[in-house]
Amino acid sequence: MQTTQNVYDTEEFFANYARLPRSVKGLDGAPEWPALRALLPELRGRRVLDLGCGYGWFCRWARDAGASQVVGIDVSEKMLARAGAYPADPALTYRRADLETVELPPHSFDVVFSSLAFHYVARLDRLLTQVHRALAAGGFLVFSAEHPIYSAPAQPQWLDGPSGRTWPVDHYLDEGARSRDWLAAGVVKYHRTIASHVNLLIGLGFSLSQLVEWGPTDAQIVAQPELGDERHRPMFMLFAAHRR
Amino acid sequence: MQTTQNVYDTEEFFANYARLPRSVKGLDGAPEWPALRALLPELRGRRVLDLGCGYGWFCRWARDAGASQVVGIDVSEKMLARAGAYPADPALTYRRADLETVELPPHSFDVVFSSLAFHYVARLDRLLTQVHRALAAGGFLVFSAEHPIYSAPAQPQWLDGPSGRTWPVDHYLDEGARSRDWLAAGVVKYHRTIASHVNLLIGLGFSLSQLVEWGPTDAQIVAQPELGDERHRPMFMLFAAHRR
Repeated sequence: MQTTQNVYDTEEFFANYARLPRSVKGLDGAPEWPALRALLPELRGRRVLDLGCGYGWFCRWARDAGASQVVGIDVSEKMLARAGAYPADPALTYRRADLETVELPPHSFDVVFSSLAFHYVARLDRLLTQVHRALAAGGFLVFSAEHPIYSAPAQPQWLDGPSGRTWPVDHYLDEGARSRDWLAAGVVKYHRTIASHVNLLIGLGFSLSQLVEWGPTDAQIVAQPELGDERHRPMFMLFAAHRR
Repeated sequence: MQTTQNVYDTEEFFANYARLPRSVKGLDGAPEWPALRALLPELRGRRVLDLGCGYGWFCRWARDAGASQVVGIDVSEKMLARAGAYPADPALTYRRADLETVELPPHSFDVVFSSLAFHYVARLDRLLTQVHRALAAGGFLVFSAEHPIYSAPAQPQWLDGPSGRTWPVDHYLDEGARSRDWLAAGVVKYHRTIASHVNLLIGLGFSLSQLVEWGPTDAQIVAQPELGDERHRPMFMLFAAHRR
């Protein structure tokens, strides 16, 4: 299978990915999960699609939450192998596909979910066109992606100065590929502004219902003080939209 | 008249404001004006309100564009005096009011416009509630405000390093008053995230139709090379919404 980028199946990336808190602990290892979960509609009796499902943590959670049918899509064989290691559930299926080229059946889902996958996709407009088509009328799209403040800079690392920690933002309005050393060398991510996401969704026929620029709550910082810096600049953005 | 902040009528602020390109040249002195204008609906035959109208440049432009009635509101006596110095137009009226406390007549306008005024308003939720109520069904709201990337940092100034110019972002998620020395010492502006604006509008019953994180076009940079740095981080954000 041809894919634009499948760094996820390289030894280096996969081994490092497997050690992330969100890989070890699942959804509860992701500090933005409570905020993302709060954007989800009731899943009971609904058909759910997860784009970039990884180990399948969300797919299993959606089934536990009463979803009638769950499909997880990922390009990584290794991740899908791990996802499939759980007891068989006839209402939960995994499918290997590249989000750059995936074809989704029309009007087949009530909820489309995606966690931190869209910033790896070069042709997000194509993918969201597929998503819109795949949703039933009134269906929901809930996703997270890297925040453009986080993805913009040429040198994405904290600066420590006399007045404290600051995050250098440059090239914010210059969208496109950014090569990053994250879990492996030269991982390609796509930097896009918030406005581009908003206007793409609206242009495709979605109504935006909520936007979150994610930061930790006070309680989270008490429990994990190292999260404190994340108030300085959002690492993630979360969108909730529905098909008009 | 009690106002929360009327720095605009101090000698220092007003004298410096009067020298800005956008004060001298009007709308064409504002590099974001072409983008803001592009968000406006057809004004012909429509009732238009301008919140924070300053010298009245937009009010007069709206009348020239065929608006049937235009009202400009500002807290600054000096600015309104300047606005009123133009030949009388029975369909163009100015009113002195504080945007913190202004009461707007319900269902009285088809288009509400505001340029770079909302970030001076402490209770934006109150003001936008008034705006929503003042609009006829299907009416439009088009406004610009300082971008939160611009307003966030403790030290809002460019950093020049070996890899070029960068803008320090910190305290992005900590909304609230920021005291700035801009045209006068200690001007209070209110830092709010993009998400707060989006969610406030949606929560009040607006549908978002477009968001612009403003930067200069290539042609603008050719004509005014000093605008080039503005591609590194947006100084302004522009919203177009309509009353559902």
